[in-house]
Amino acid sequence: MPFFSSEAYATRRQAVSEALAGTYSAGLIVGTGPEFTYLTGSAMGSHERLTALVFRPDGAVLAVAPLTDIDTLRAEAELAGVELAGWRDGESPYALVAEFLGADTAYTPVDIAPGLTADHIFALQGYLSKTRLVAPEIGACFTSKDAVEIAELTKAGAAIDRVHAQVPALLTPGRTEAEIAAEIADLILAEHARAEFIIVGSGPNGANPHHDYSDRVLEAGDIVVVDIGGPLESGYNSDCTRTYVAGGDPSQADPEALEAYAVLKRAQAAAVAAARPGITAGELDAVARDILAEAGYGEYFTHRLGHGIGLAVHEAPFIIGGRDVVLREGMAFSIEPGIYIPGRFGMRIEDIVVLTAEGAIALNTQPKDLR
Amino acid sequence: MPFFSSEAYATRRQAVSEALAGTYSAGLIVGTGPEFTYLTGSAMGSHERLTALVFRPDGAVLAVAPLTDIDTLRAEAELAGVELAGWRDGESPYALVAEFLGADTAYTPVDIAPGLTADHIFALQGYLSKTRLVAPEIGACFTSKDAVEIAELTKAGAAIDRVHAQVPALLTPGRTEAEIAAEIADLILAEHARAEFIIVGSGPNGANPHHDYSDRVLEAGDIVVVDIGGPLESGYNSDCTRTYVAGGDPSQADPEALEAYAVLKRAQAAAVAAARPGITAGELDAVARDILAEAGYGEYFTHRLGHGIGLAVHEAPFIIGGRDVVLREGMAFSIEPGIYIPGRFGMRIEDIVVLTAEGAIALNTQPKDLR
Repeated sequence: MPFFSSEAYATRRQAVSEALAGTYSAGLIVGTGPEFTYLTGSAMGSHERLTALVFRPDGAVLAVAPLTDIDTLRAEAELAGVELAGWRDGESPYALVAEFLGADTAYTPVDIAPGLTADHIFALQGYLSKTRLVAPEIGACFTSKDAVEIAELTKAGAAIDRVHAQVPALLTPGRTEAEIAAEIADLILAEHARAEFIIVGSGPNGANPHHDYSDRVLEAGDIVVVDIGGPLESGYNSDCTRTYVAGGDPSQADPEALEAYAVLKRAQAAAVAAARPGITAGELDAVARDILAEAGYGEYFTHRLGHGIGLAVHEAPFIIGGRDVVLREGMAFSIEPGIYIPGRFGMRIEDIVVLTAEGAIALNTQPKDLR
Repeated sequence: MPFFSSEAYATRRQAVSEALAGTYSAGLIVGTGPEFTYLTGSAMGSHERLTALVFRPDGAVLAVAPLTDIDTLRAEAELAGVELAGWRDGESPYALVAEFLGADTAYTPVDIAPGLTADHIFALQGYLSKTRLVAPEIGACFTSKDAVEIAELTKAGAAIDRVHAQVPALLTPGRTEAEIAAEIADLILAEHARAEFIIVGSGPNGANPHHDYSDRVLEAGDIVVVDIGGPLESGYNSDCTRTYVAGGDPSQADPEALEAYAVLKRAQAAAVAAARPGITAGELDAVARDILAEAGYGEYFTHRLGHGIGLAVHEAPFIIGGRDVVLREGMAFSIEPGIYIPGRFGMRIEDIVVLTAEGAIALNTQPKDLR
């Protein structure tokens, strides 16, 4: 069910139409997924039968769906001012889309949102002479959050902060990662609609950034990475990482880990401080990466600095070395450098930030001292 | 975790390589999803970072994954004989794929499996001069089930049959669709790894083929469509529909519904009897559709006759009017005609069948008399 008002969704579609009108594009096709939800309030799926929102540069918007799903779509989505077109099995929804977009598609590219799948794309390419991944000018409509979205992300940040506040008490030597993860799942569920992901990476397991949890038993002094999150009822996600010491006494930890952690904390804080409208993704990534590299940890920071977040846990903008995407006001993304020493330990600190004219506001506020 | 043996997955990859070698293709790219699981045993997801299996016509196979996921992939997947290539954020996995496929991609099309998303496809199109949706000769590897798959689908059919056997007792007048759906969910879970979908469409709600369930209270004599299924631990799915009368006494039902149901039962049985290797999807669809049309129900059968089933609930082959896909031995798909009279009632009968040299074997065996 739509979480915001009919007007909120209409305003978002209006912004897309305006961006489209200002671009050399014959239209935009958005399949089901986070962008569709953002524009209609409906989280319906589509699979092999095309359901999509189609924007024309003149401002007209068409929702295409299987005839059998049209009633559901009408009931679930906010579609004021949107034309609806149902198609039957055996008919081509792609022909419907092409007909709606009109003759311009013979010369002008049509933009496709990122989640559409190959079966639909190649079928569309049979009707449209040029297609491309959604142009940045249009994609910007999805990456800058509006006020209600920022409010939801702020609530999500506070919700996962309340979970992290209870994590240190769970990290008792002698317990397994899996036991701890099960308790964290309950804590996340108490604050969210779903526990989407849980990483409890202790000792050497922490050195795999995508480890989830295992039957490894925590030992006193183990460095433990805890990366957790999930969506609120509104669909907006939390995602926050803190690194702890099993048993809570840093003096029991590997001294080299303590040294590394001090550098990591500095690198993460520097990136948060540097994040502001106008900086590129590549420049921001470099702020943290340079500090880690200078201290000798460059090769142990094996992933990007961060990712956008909203109705999807991972979405544009991606904060990756070398990327010249300019970060803008309203963007919400993670800043999460890490250090991973294979066979020994791993560590990561992650906050979600929102860019404002004043700089980045961190939506996560739990302490970052090792404890 | 892989459900079958290392050899089973190697044999499947071998079959894909052989199909590829016999086709005008420079390679096949398979993203995560059902085909990836079929070929590796791993159900891992990929999202915005490319994880894919890449086949070259000379028989070489490459698994591409983010460096941070390579260990997980190695642990989760059966990849004997497959080369592994990890890539870091900031590097291009698409360049890796293109380099592996080699110079042929300048002239020869590269096949893409259906689930890959737009972000990856357009990036690949920057490196590969011609791409297309996987050619039918290669796609056939995924649509004809092997013996272990047929065994799993048979188990799934028996599991959902045991659920349907208990459904009539639940359809008591005075209860809501939602109450009944909750009980069915428990029954499905007792027999499956997950309750994937539940439709309880009573009276006029049955006329929407994609209605799930609501707070509508069943009345004696209501026609009730119950369409349910889910995956076993192996990932293979069940999917079966029966139509019932609330209260169990057909004499209380709308006489026109009884008339329609008799035609529907005849149409469904005729399609099951006609299904055999060599018939096209379009011809099979017509077998049921013609019977319904002749009796005056043509316009009320608003969807395709059926869909393939396996690791995905809906997959190729799709049994759609006009499609000239030739059905072959080993294909498993649903045969599910329906009649939907808006505002009054709906009905559908669905069996999963497997094609053998002897004809179609139905994997669902619950009675089809209205009861």
